[in-house]
Amino acid sequence: MTRTAAIIGGGVIGGGWAARFALNGWNVRVYDPDPEAERKIGEVMENARRSLPGLTDVALPAEATVSFHGAIAEAVAGAEWIQESVPERLEIKHATFAEVQAACDPEAVIGSSTSGFKPSELQQGAKRAGQIMVAHPFNPVYLLPLVELVPGEAGEATLIERAKATLSSLGMHALHLKKEIDAHVADRFLEAVWREALWLVKDGIATTEEIDNAIRYGFGIRWAQMGLFETYRVAGGEAGMKHFMAQFGPALKWPWTKLINVPDFTEELVDLIADQSDAQSGAHSIRELERIRDNNLVTMMRGLKAQNWGAGALLNAQEKVMRAGTPMGARAADLPADAPVLTAERTVPLDWTDYNGHMTESRYLHAFADATDRFMEIIGCDAEYIASGGSYFTAETHIRHIDEVNAGAVIQIRTQVILGEGKKMHLWHEMREGGRLLATGEHFLLHVSLETRKPSIPAPHVEEALVRFAKGHAGLPRPEGLGRAIGAPR
Amino acid sequence: MTRTAAIIGGGVIGGGWAARFALNGWNVRVYDPDPEAERKIGEVMENARRSLPGLTDVALPAEATVSFHGAIAEAVAGAEWIQESVPERLEIKHATFAEVQAACDPEAVIGSSTSGFKPSELQQGAKRAGQIMVAHPFNPVYLLPLVELVPGEAGEATLIERAKATLSSLGMHALHLKKEIDAHVADRFLEAVWREALWLVKDGIATTEEIDNAIRYGFGIRWAQMGLFETYRVAGGEAGMKHFMAQFGPALKWPWTKLINVPDFTEELVDLIADQSDAQSGAHSIRELERIRDNNLVTMMRGLKAQNWGAGALLNAQEKVMRAGTPMGARAADLPADAPVLTAERTVPLDWTDYNGHMTESRYLHAFADATDRFMEIIGCDAEYIASGGSYFTAETHIRHIDEVNAGAVIQIRTQVILGEGKKMHLWHEMREGGRLLATGEHFLLHVSLETRKPSIPAPHVEEALVRFAKGHAGLPRPEGLGRAIGAPR
Repeated sequence: MTRTAAIIGGGVIGGGWAARFALNGWNVRVYDPDPEAERKIGEVMENARRSLPGLTDVALPAEATVSFHGAIAEAVAGAEWIQESVPERLEIKHATFAEVQAACDPEAVIGSSTSGFKPSELQQGAKRAGQIMVAHPFNPVYLLPLVELVPGEAGEATLIERAKATLSSLGMHALHLKKEIDAHVADRFLEAVWREALWLVKDGIATTEEIDNAIRYGFGIRWAQMGLFETYRVAGGEAGMKHFMAQFGPALKWPWTKLINVPDFTEELVDLIADQSDAQSGAHSIRELERIRDNNLVTMMRGLKAQNWGAGALLNAQEKVMRAGTPMGARAADLPADAPVLTAERTVPLDWTDYNGHMTESRYLHAFADATDRFMEIIGCDAEYIASGGSYFTAETHIRHIDEVNAGAVIQIRTQVILGEGKKMHLWHEMREGGRLLATGEHFLLHVSLETRKPSIPAPHVEEALVRFAKGHAGLPRPEGLGRAIGAPR
Repeated sequence: MTRTAAIIGGGVIGGGWAARFALNGWNVRVYDPDPEAERKIGEVMENARRSLPGLTDVALPAEATVSFHGAIAEAVAGAEWIQESVPERLEIKHATFAEVQAACDPEAVIGSSTSGFKPSELQQGAKRAGQIMVAHPFNPVYLLPLVELVPGEAGEATLIERAKATLSSLGMHALHLKKEIDAHVADRFLEAVWREALWLVKDGIATTEEIDNAIRYGFGIRWAQMGLFETYRVAGGEAGMKHFMAQFGPALKWPWTKLINVPDFTEELVDLIADQSDAQSGAHSIRELERIRDNNLVTMMRGLKAQNWGAGALLNAQEKVMRAGTPMGARAADLPADAPVLTAERTVPLDWTDYNGHMTESRYLHAFADATDRFMEIIGCDAEYIASGGSYFTAETHIRHIDEVNAGAVIQIRTQVILGEGKKMHLWHEMREGGRLLATGEHFLLHVSLETRKPSIPAPHVEEALVRFAKGHAGLPRPEGLGRAIGAPR
């Protein structure tokens, strides 16, 4: 049966919750007196629809209905989860909970998106205090998994377990805090960094952009995969957490932040942290953690490279400089027409490999497709030409996987033109590590108009450069395996 | 000509610098009195070799030589960059700089990896103060791009520009701070978070693991791509930075962190930040920034999913639950043998698309390869079977790209067994969005022994399940395009 959630208060956070529930197949009933609520939530839903469903490799259930209601009592009817995201004023929260509890199922979870209030504050004067708990999400709610779940002392065990299971089914992680505190955990860090950042801007040490770069090019990307303590455990080396703390303990007394109220760095505190760190990360050796960290960093940095953003944009800039003066930066006129063209010289990256460290099947095509792009660039079908409306689309591909290759190996691809005339381009790629043949790729492409998406004749300079290679390569030996069909006798 | 760097002080940081230089083709000369230095740097180099060269899609220059020297004077000979990473004690740093400057090229950059000392402190008593600057990197130095470059008032413009150009050629980003401050910028944030975290652990609010999860499942992954201010600009919505600050300004007076010494939240400070934020991010609308952010988050989260770590491990756990009870969780015995098998039902994710939003070429093979994996799992060649030493390897693939598909579309793949006997498996995949045929994939696989990497006969239960489908599918119509060779007439 379709489950139902009520969203009390729209906006970016309420809308994010609505999207998370609806895209996971829950009916969503919204109450928000803002006349713009439907439009605002619609915009968040639109963002969520383009990003959330592809996160997993299995389709989500069919999207359920989002309906809008003029009264809280109507919105909470039949809801097993009620999420409050009204403004951060305690009297508004209290009034909202009173209306909710007057009408809702007493077994429903009432979660509050509050950034700062403690559950005991939210529960003041409530009919059923144990039903109300902090369920603090992070923007964008439809993508980020973290929810701080703080039920407080009044929390009911059954409801808490139900809340955790529900969040987990939505792809979220309930961080269940047993002791309440202002601003929970994550926002305390955000607030500390925010306050420190205000000082830096105010004192003219750094601009907002410099501060953002200090974060995203360094510890930000580290923190995306391991947090503070696990990162430091790795930094401490084989000696581990205690060594790290011994090294940086004294800094607590130095003016390294405006946060000068520090806990006493007693032996008890050091032991407590070292023990918790062992429990958290002790299953992996430091060497293993280093490699896990590096696999994660490479994967994320290369992902950002494909998006041309942040640390990935830096890699693209570096690469552009690296290409200049190498065969990877050459143009058609610089290259002999009677020899296969070097279209790739690259190292197999960590994010292209399977658990055995071998390059995975689809990355062979990735490398061949990049080599095709490079050949297109050589004959003048470059970014500027593509922007002007023409390109080549691959119609067919035939790959033979001949040998395995590991991450870290330098591979080269050489390309032979089998046919190049009019709108047709037939290429033969050979991938090697040194002298070892790893794979062949046979590709048939058609030049297309990007406007009509239909085949078209390339611009004269592109066709001319292609024909030059086609003629020059006509004298090369016919590659072994060319024109082969799968299942045909060799 | 090969350029030369001198590394004074090895360890994790000095070793990271050595790796960064050597893998970018610089000769590296190391001075470190630690008898273990060569082993320690060797270990860092080994980590760097497996991770750094694949970051870019173009091969790095050939790795240069790392040599070890018994005296600073010898190590700095011919070096145009000298990087000091000795222990964080000012008198050791001063003594080191004196020895370095007695022997080095006066035009060389002397960078210090210090986490906390200001350049004016480092330069005290130096022969040529302007030659010494803070060049503070982040661990792992061979991967993370950030270097805080703080030359101080004594800094020489020519040397500073040279330092920035060199760091950039190494794929690093020089964050040039014009005003010095204890612990520069990034470590002030780290120290604030560290101090706040010590309180939370000490007060029993959260364990080290809970704190790490609060970071990496929430703001950590956000900060990997945008920093503090750009993230908040987006959160502020169309009203932007000023709106955000108006909303969270009052929190400065609340006990949301132990950092209670806060700057006055004056109109001047608000304007300063809003103006800097406009200069930083104003080229993109909030809606654009939201989509850039979401593209980045999806890309990184899916990257972590492939690594089965952090937020990506959560996605895998969610997916496992989602599969149960759907055709994506079925086994051979649950499925009719006389119909093509549904081997994928998934949404095209944002990280699979090109700049036009269409699925890129190599992701067709990615989807087909996943479908093959799913078919293998159905016939019993699952993770457990693979761990026992047998698997199928793809020998040949033929893909026909028939139509385009956008991110967000749900695609299905149905699989027909063309041949399944002994060690041979010949599959035909058809990929559709609804009724629209997008691509076909013809795949020839061989069962192999993972020990010998040579063809072998599968276990009886796997062969039996495969033969059942092969027999059942023998009655299906022969797919159009089967056995086609590229370039052959249709």
